[in-house]
Amino acid sequence: MIVLSNDDGFNAEGLRVLRREMMKVAEVVIVAPETEQSAMGHAITLTQPLKVREVVENGELIGYAVNGTPADCVKIATTVLLDQPPEMVVSGINLGGNLGTCAIYSGTVSAATEATIMEIPAIAVSLNTFENPDFSFAGEFTRKLAPLVLEKGLPQGVALNVNVPAVPRSEIKGVTVTRQGRSRVVETFDKRVDPRNNTYYWMAGEMRFDEADEDTDCRRVSNNYVSVTPIHFDLTSHRTIAKLKDWDISL
Amino acid sequence: MIVLSNDDGFNAEGLRVLRREMMKVAEVVIVAPETEQSAMGHAITLTQPLKVREVVENGELIGYAVNGTPADCVKIATTVLLDQPPEMVVSGINLGGNLGTCAIYSGTVSAATEATIMEIPAIAVSLNTFENPDFSFAGEFTRKLAPLVLEKGLPQGVALNVNVPAVPRSEIKGVTVTRQGRSRVVETFDKRVDPRNNTYYWMAGEMRFDEADEDTDCRRVSNNYVSVTPIHFDLTSHRTIAKLKDWDISL
Repeated sequence: MIVLSNDDGFNAEGLRVLRREMMKVAEVVIVAPETEQSAMGHAITLTQPLKVREVVENGELIGYAVNGTPADCVKIATTVLLDQPPEMVVSGINLGGNLGTCAIYSGTVSAATEATIMEIPAIAVSLNTFENPDFSFAGEFTRKLAPLVLEKGLPQGVALNVNVPAVPRSEIKGVTVTRQGRSRVVETFDKRVDPRNNTYYWMAGEMRFDEADEDTDCRRVSNNYVSVTPIHFDLTSHRTIAKLKDWDISL
Repeated sequence: MIVLSNDDGFNAEGLRVLRREMMKVAEVVIVAPETEQSAMGHAITLTQPLKVREVVENGELIGYAVNGTPADCVKIATTVLLDQPPEMVVSGINLGGNLGTCAIYSGTVSAATEATIMEIPAIAVSLNTFENPDFSFAGEFTRKLAPLVLEKGLPQGVALNVNVPAVPRSEIKGVTVTRQGRSRVVETFDKRVDPRNNTYYWMAGEMRFDEADEDTDCRRVSNNYVSVTPIHFDLTSHRTIAKLKDWDISL
């Protein structure tokens, strides 16, 4: 059984396209947030209870909608809802790329990361556009990639973060293995005053692609390649360890 | 100016101890969530406006309470609230350790990570207990570490994740530089039924310390050492890149 999740919510088009494609190659069940959970990062829900709604369509149980985050969905799917751990978690297809630094804000990516923590192979898939999305090619690509992941296996603790350019199939130049770039969103805060004279702010911002290195996710997707980045949850900056050992931080 | 933040909320004791200590060595301002935001991971708030409340105590502006996440606090502090970017962000002192895999769920750690994305040096500090916390030694240690970070500098994109054992000062054996361990929380879901016959679940769980390696944060803190782990936001599993290049994932 393959669990499908996302952060755009149970009824998002990208998830439905993913399901349609994945059903061709595997048994699937959706365990996804009831509502949009974008930019939730790796949040989990500890301060309120999780409610689970069985979703039946055309007389068939197609999955579970959870009032929580994508990481919650993976946890509750594996621990409670399924009889045995899923073979794989596939998360997406996200509306908008999860490239460079932005990957750390992504609920879609966190569903995949949570799966790897539970030692389940996982893929996160995102389509790099917010406008007029056509998820069909990203869906087909995932349908081919998922069995390959099951066949080849991934190192323990590693998931794949896949980003697909939003261009017609004929313009896609190929598939590349990349590393996470350093491009980031530069925020702006739109300041307003409410009728009771309280100040509030809307966070906005746009992705600044200032990546020079060709082998990063950001650059490759900008150049119309599908990007596949192996990611893990080890935040250690290993090369900084030696440097710190030279510091005098004794008590 | 040093920004102090956390995920336990503006009025948490750990943050107040941190402020008291840091005031001895620097100018500080608190920019912290109005309410507890534990386990928020690297969430940011896009779907509702951020409200900022100036907090005045004894006639002095000590900081800003924000109705958002720790990452929101760092973003709005740097972009809107301060005249110039802070020299450093110090986040904590967290009630409970942020060790092993748990670091990725931590709002306290995410405030530090967010700072590094904005190219500001940062430290996250956690006290490894939930009961009868005594933050005083962790506060003193941070007061010594912070100037060292300013003096020595950290590589771009790197922050320090500090975990302090909750034992009397005399029992602390020393300070070690560590890597993030793989110990994780093993969840349990407590199933209940509400008066209207709906099923809901409370997520609980406990940290399972099954770490064998001595140089990990989990082991060192268990053995009464202060742990300093350099962390970054690059999720790439660099050693998996070569493996994936052998796969046939062409179109």
